[in-house]
Amino acid sequence: MQKFRKLASMLGVEHAIILAPMAGGTSTPALVAAVSNAGGLGSLGAGYMTPEDLAKAIAEIRERTDKPFAVNLFAGGYDGTGSSDTAAMLKLIAPWHERLALPPPTAPAGALPPFEQQVEAILRSDVPVFSFTFGIPAADIMRRMKDRGIKLVGTATTVAEARALEQAGVDAIVAQGSEAGAHRGTFIAALEDSLVGTIALVPQMVDAVSVPVIASGGIMDGRGIVAAAALGASGVQLGTAFLACPESGAPAAHKAAIRTARDDGTMLTRAFSGRLARGITNAFAAEMLGHANDLLPYPAQNNLTRPMRAAAAKQGSADCLSLWAGQAAALAREMPAAELVAQLLRETAAMLASIAQ
Amino acid sequence: MQKFRKLASMLGVEHAIILAPMAGGTSTPALVAAVSNAGGLGSLGAGYMTPEDLAKAIAEIRERTDKPFAVNLFAGGYDGTGSSDTAAMLKLIAPWHERLALPPPTAPAGALPPFEQQVEAILRSDVPVFSFTFGIPAADIMRRMKDRGIKLVGTATTVAEARALEQAGVDAIVAQGSEAGAHRGTFIAALEDSLVGTIALVPQMVDAVSVPVIASGGIMDGRGIVAAAALGASGVQLGTAFLACPESGAPAAHKAAIRTARDDGTMLTRAFSGRLARGITNAFAAEMLGHANDLLPYPAQNNLTRPMRAAAAKQGSADCLSLWAGQAAALAREMPAAELVAQLLRETAAMLASIAQ
Repeated sequence: MQKFRKLASMLGVEHAIILAPMAGGTSTPALVAAVSNAGGLGSLGAGYMTPEDLAKAIAEIRERTDKPFAVNLFAGGYDGTGSSDTAAMLKLIAPWHERLALPPPTAPAGALPPFEQQVEAILRSDVPVFSFTFGIPAADIMRRMKDRGIKLVGTATTVAEARALEQAGVDAIVAQGSEAGAHRGTFIAALEDSLVGTIALVPQMVDAVSVPVIASGGIMDGRGIVAAAALGASGVQLGTAFLACPESGAPAAHKAAIRTARDDGTMLTRAFSGRLARGITNAFAAEMLGHANDLLPYPAQNNLTRPMRAAAAKQGSADCLSLWAGQAAALAREMPAAELVAQLLRETAAMLASIAQ
Repeated sequence: MQKFRKLASMLGVEHAIILAPMAGGTSTPALVAAVSNAGGLGSLGAGYMTPEDLAKAIAEIRERTDKPFAVNLFAGGYDGTGSSDTAAMLKLIAPWHERLALPPPTAPAGALPPFEQQVEAILRSDVPVFSFTFGIPAADIMRRMKDRGIKLVGTATTVAEARALEQAGVDAIVAQGSEAGAHRGTFIAALEDSLVGTIALVPQMVDAVSVPVIASGGIMDGRGIVAAAALGASGVQLGTAFLACPESGAPAAHKAAIRTARDDGTMLTRAFSGRLARGITNAFAAEMLGHANDLLPYPAQNNLTRPMRAAAAKQGSADCLSLWAGQAAALAREMPAAELVAQLLRETAAMLASIAQ
């Protein structure tokens, strides 16, 4: 576990166990701080946050911990996929609005908060670690972050993406295996080609780059952590494992779905955001399989489905909620995040003590 | 590694490192015997063999080794997918025949050799281990094998399939992760739902069944073997890792493709056999993506493409050959199988000695 200690030391934390940034309110400041206070690295998924909300969330994290944490943004995202015919999609989603007693859907307005302003908010707040996915920020952003002493962590789903991130000067790379829940971070490969499993992806990436590689996708317990270390990883990033924690902002219906998750119960879908993401199969995602060509591009589809998802969360309806989850969601545990980190550390130590025997 | 030793002892071998059965002539008797002689368990992929060829191959293995080995059959396979319109497929494959200077393609004749007769050949030869994929043999076959003291190893791609295999009385289960090369062993789950990565699949399967689980998919070296052990596996099965060995029967063009393989360079395709399988992307498989509905069911598509594949192998043309490979094919090594087994054991020992530090 020497590489784990080295990465932990570089990030200024005790253990190279990283909370995956879960945008859309799942990685709450409370969850981020809990993981950091427990010796890991909490990550705020801030991709959908306005600069103002971002600053507020960072302040809230700082109230709860003086340990390092990461803030994660979407450095890109639009991948050219999606229909320009909003009418067809509005027709498809209308019955779902009706079921939720929502007014009829309207053409999605607004885009994501501007990335550059999100970056300025991060620079102003002097966060310890800036992580990103869906692409690579412009060179001047990377340089300004570095000048501030902010550690940079990029996300890669293929060896080619890892090489591009290393070239761009990141301090570490998250290897996102195909098992991972939520959005694929893919930005060079075709999305279908980028579905490489963690056990195949990590060693190839470790061989290809000289910066530390953080394994993610399917890691839920001490078994996964020791497996990642054996594959050559310098750390692990876990999202689904923390989804059912009380500090997680996932809606109750989402947490309930995790409770009954099965290994073969997830699917990759563009139905909720327009970008490919893994979640527990539900009625809306299954229905949209038959309408793949009507889905709007990211982030328009995300804006279009927001009222539906918000109402579904409020009404406790799992059938049209984005139930992001990895392929080992069934191994998730419902306990406070600090306890979970402690449990992960115990399991890791026990596995390390027994595996050689 | 206690579980590895226990499984090895049950199989009567020194090390729980299993050569994946690679049907169609890749796992030659020479390769099977080399792995068994090196202390692992060689497996003959006999799914396409006539009972006579099977008996001959088993005799040839026995000439080369007195160690245990496995023979693998297809216990099922047809999954209801495929077109009944042979004309469309004949039209699609005609230009490929022309390029290879073959006579025009004809409607595929013949089926697979009858499973029951293959089973009788195995029973007559008293093979030490019978492994199977694509389903579960009938109860009376399982009982007759057991009565002979033949160990039974099934293949599962999901937890539900593993439970069904345990119920049927297998002695061990191969957990086939989505990274694995060649055919998916799926027989209960929908093929798309069964693409669970090894790091997610193995621990869930280990928790669900009480028989030993053998990890497969993406395992190429000591890193993968120790990772599998950490995940709770009792052994590993490697196919792609042995594909480039001189004893492997893979055509030269296939071995050459492995040499330049990339993590994001494989795809899942029904183009060659009618059943979903992972191979290195080439022109024929890519072209057939656009004609998914014209592909014939398994095994008719396999029979249809056989002349093309045979000619391509002979002519050294990789563009219409089934280039089966897992997602970590780039880590394959070209060395005699016995050396590779020894190398895997050294790497495993070195990783075990260092990981806890």
